[in-house]
Amino acid sequence: MVKYEVELDAIFLALAHPARRAMLARLGRGEATVGELAAPLGISLPAVTKHLKVMERAKLISRGRNAQWRPCRLEEAPLEAAAGWIEEQRQVWEGRFDRLETYLGTLENEEGTKR
Amino acid sequence: MVKYEVELDAIFLALAHPARRAMLARLGRGEATVGELAAPLGISLPAVTKHLKVMERAKLISRGRNAQWRPCRLEEAPLEAAAGWIEEQRQVWEGRFDRLETYLGTLENEEGTKR
Repeated sequence: MVKYEVELDAIFLALAHPARRAMLARLGRGEATVGELAAPLGISLPAVTKHLKVMERAKLISRGRNAQWRPCRLEEAPLEAAAGWIEEQRQVWEGRFDRLETYLGTLENEEGTKR
Repeated sequence: MVKYEVELDAIFLALAHPARRAMLARLGRGEATVGELAAPLGISLPAVTKHLKVMERAKLISRGRNAQWRPCRLEEAPLEAAAGWIEEQRQVWEGRFDRLETYLGTLENEEGTKR
């Protein structure tokens, strides 16, 4: 549970920057080198490397072994974990609305019986 | 688009802390006062207030008008926006797998024709 919490911290933090989200969107279409990730964003290679480190820490990306290119690859599992957490919350709040509806339904029925 | 990006930054940043996620999970069950949010977390009221500000900035919560209690309420829309962004990425990477499968299917068919 604690591990899961720490992982979600890292994942959501990694998602909290437009350049990192743009890189993840690009990697969703397939592997890319650091240069290929940097080009459309118009940011320096060191800046890209910094963003990549944040995403690697969150395990959102992995890097190839090839020493020269080390292409980046999207890892889907952490994104699924983030979506899973939000989905859990949705079930809670939708459950609350369902209970409210049931309760309002009961009130209406009682009102009907009284008449 | 830029506005959407800034909003996603604030939303994902707000989600990147276990105390804030715990508070959002609590608010999913219904409104709560600052005191009610603080109690189960064992953190100080000023710390809770700081977290609430981060969540208010992301529009994840709203505060009641009642000057004394100002109960906090969960706003679902930003969570839906965050889930929506992840869902967009899923469509991209699943599209990639689909194209790969189609391509591999084509290769297999070609192989079959040659035999």
